[in-house]
Amino acid sequence: MSHPGFARTPEPPYFAVIFTSQRTDGDRGYEHMAQRMVELAAQQPGFLGVESVRDKAGLGITVSYWRSREDIRAWREHAEHQSAQAAGRRIWYADYRLRICEVLRESAPAGADATSQSG
Amino acid sequence: MSHPGFARTPEPPYFAVIFTSQRTDGDRGYEHMAQRMVELAAQQPGFLGVESVRDKAGLGITVSYWRSREDIRAWREHAEHQSAQAAGRRIWYADYRLRICEVLRESAPAGADATSQSG
Repeated sequence: MSHPGFARTPEPPYFAVIFTSQRTDGDRGYEHMAQRMVELAAQQPGFLGVESVRDKAGLGITVSYWRSREDIRAWREHAEHQSAQAAGRRIWYADYRLRICEVLRESAPAGADATSQSG
Repeated sequence: MSHPGFARTPEPPYFAVIFTSQRTDGDRGYEHMAQRMVELAAQQPGFLGVESVRDKAGLGITVSYWRSREDIRAWREHAEHQSAQAAGRRIWYADYRLRICEVLRESAPAGADATSQSG
């Protein structure tokens, strides 16, 4: 069985959004929003999974995986997500980088519950 | 000025390696190796930067950025890195996923010290 922190993605190619962010101090509604956005993203067409980590200094990396760039575009334009993005820029994030990628190859340790085993 | 946690990458396209990993318990030489690998990677041809976060549960995401897939291949085959990869599989990582990607687009908040500003 796979660790819950790993996304179970299909054979590449598929797409990824790498969101690196530095949080401002204090929660100010952030945790509630972040949880809601993961729930909402998971309901969108083409969503393949998400991996997300934040350290105690407030630096975070969230990678969401998608079937196509069109699916990423649709999620970005989702009304509730747009509202969260605006609040993120205004309140929650001191800075961020967002990168749209095509995943070309995936590997995992031999025996892991993943799509592809080769190193 | 950019937050030190962010990589200063050039205009896309360039390439990324997303390494998601779950640490085993205890350090067992891990922190020393991890720091050494970042130093060594930074000396390789085509290295563009790295962003890395690990939470207190031991789940981590490290994204390194590279000019080309050939640069990624060369780094993967670097002798000292190969030895660290073998120790990682044997000792430090309970599980991991490694994904090779092409970065197609990058954005940052208006005014951020990044290559591209459009959302």
